[in-house]
Amino acid sequence: MVGLADNEVLRAFASYATIVLSKMMLMSTATAFFRVTRKAFANPEDAASLGKGENPKKFIRTDEAVERVRRAHLNDLENVVPFLGIGLLYALSGPDLASALLHFRLFVGARLYHTVAYLAPLPQPNRGLAFFVGYGVTLSMAYRLLRDHLYL
Amino acid sequence: MVGLADNEVLRAFASYATIVLSKMMLMSTATAFFRVTRKAFANPEDAASLGKGENPKKFIRTDEAVERVRRAHLNDLENVVPFLGIGLLYALSGPDLASALLHFRLFVGARLYHTVAYLAPLPQPNRGLAFFVGYGVTLSMAYRLLRDHLYL
Amino acid sequence: MVGLADNEVLRAFASYATIVLSKMMLMSTATAFFRVTRKAFANPEDAASLGKGENPKKFIRTDEAVERVRRAHLNDLENVVPFLGIGLLYALSGPDLASALLHFRLFVGARLYHTVAYLAPLPQPNRGLAFFVGYGVTLSMAYRLLRDHLYL
Repeated sequence: MVGLADNEVLRAFASYATIVLSKMMLMSTATAFFRVTRKAFANPEDAASLGKGENPKKFIRTDEAVERVRRAHLNDLENVVPFLGIGLLYALSGPDLASALLHFRLFVGARLYHTVAYLAPLPQPNRGLAFFVGYGVTLSMAYRLLRDHLYL
Repeated sequence: MVGLADNEVLRAFASYATIVLSKMMLMSTATAFFRVTRKAFANPEDAASLGKGENPKKFIRTDEAVERVRRAHLNDLENVVPFLGIGLLYALSGPDLASALLHFRLFVGARLYHTVAYLAPLPQPNRGLAFFVGYGVTLSMAYRLLRDHLYL
Repeated sequence: MVGLADNEVLRAFASYATIVLSKMMLMSTATAFFRVTRKAFANPEDAASLGKGENPKKFIRTDEAVERVRRAHLNDLENVVPFLGIGLLYALSGPDLASALLHFRLFVGARLYHTVAYLAPLPQPNRGLAFFVGYGVTLSMAYRLLRDHLYL
């Protein structure tokens, strides 16, 4: 049986993937926070529950702070899913530990910076660069995986 | 070679993950169903194909029933992806079977209830509670994984 | 330790999953390309950086070419995530190599065709058929996994 304990690269991947997925989950909480504080809901039942004493219909609206967090969340999803799939398979392909750690650290660092740059917001190209570092790291793992283990 | 047959926790994870992913896939079918029955399409080529005999342009519109299913689908994606990544790595970390089963069952039950609460729709806090149970279960697996196997 | 080298089905899954995830990542680049060439941004800081010399506010808008790529990207995410989860667990369940290859090839082929049909765009039912082939392949893997390895 494979265990995380037997495989340092897989164990490192588990730590970095868990951190970046937990960060992504925080975006749900941030969306809920802005929806409640800005009173900007998508569903009538939410407005009815959280906009009491007033006409709840008027709280079914979009708010720029909510939409910004939602865009950051969707961008996370679009980039963390490839990292999760390609990174796990790369970790199982027996790469050099130092090289794997470099990939995982750069990706997680870039995505943390991407979130800060999106939510602050920082002027471009801060967010753009963070995006492309994460993107490049994932493509680098994909390239190594296909170069060494292609089986079609 | 690791096989599902050798590892009960991984086998249990495979069953629960497959069930919750299949449920998520049903949301695509539900969206298509509402798009066709409500005649509310996003693409001109869909309206042209499914709104025959009339001016298809008028069927390019949003419909609240379609948008509700799409929000439920996106919420699934945002929550099932962390469960998939963290849950698989947690299953590979050699947890106690009873504790793992409790996590998997609570998550899948909470997400099934979340879908019912979203589509019915049930008044809040039904959907909110379902969301937080699934969220808490995933964070609990993340915590156990990092506590026992952190490798940065 | 399990390695990709020891398991042909897992190695094949790694290749096909990496290809379909890399294709999905291209959608981010396509979105950025259309946002820049059409000057249609979602964030003020992007419009300020890329719409220089003019009033950047007027470039915060939606554009049909951008929205089409974004819909194709989200549809990819909704379908590639179940393939990634169910496909990996199916690959670990020890299926027949020929049968596994058939599933992986059909899925990846269908998703490549789906993207072409979405972006061209081709008239329906081209995109619809591509969607249902990928969907059916994933459900077929889910069925085989649950039939042979159900553990609740």
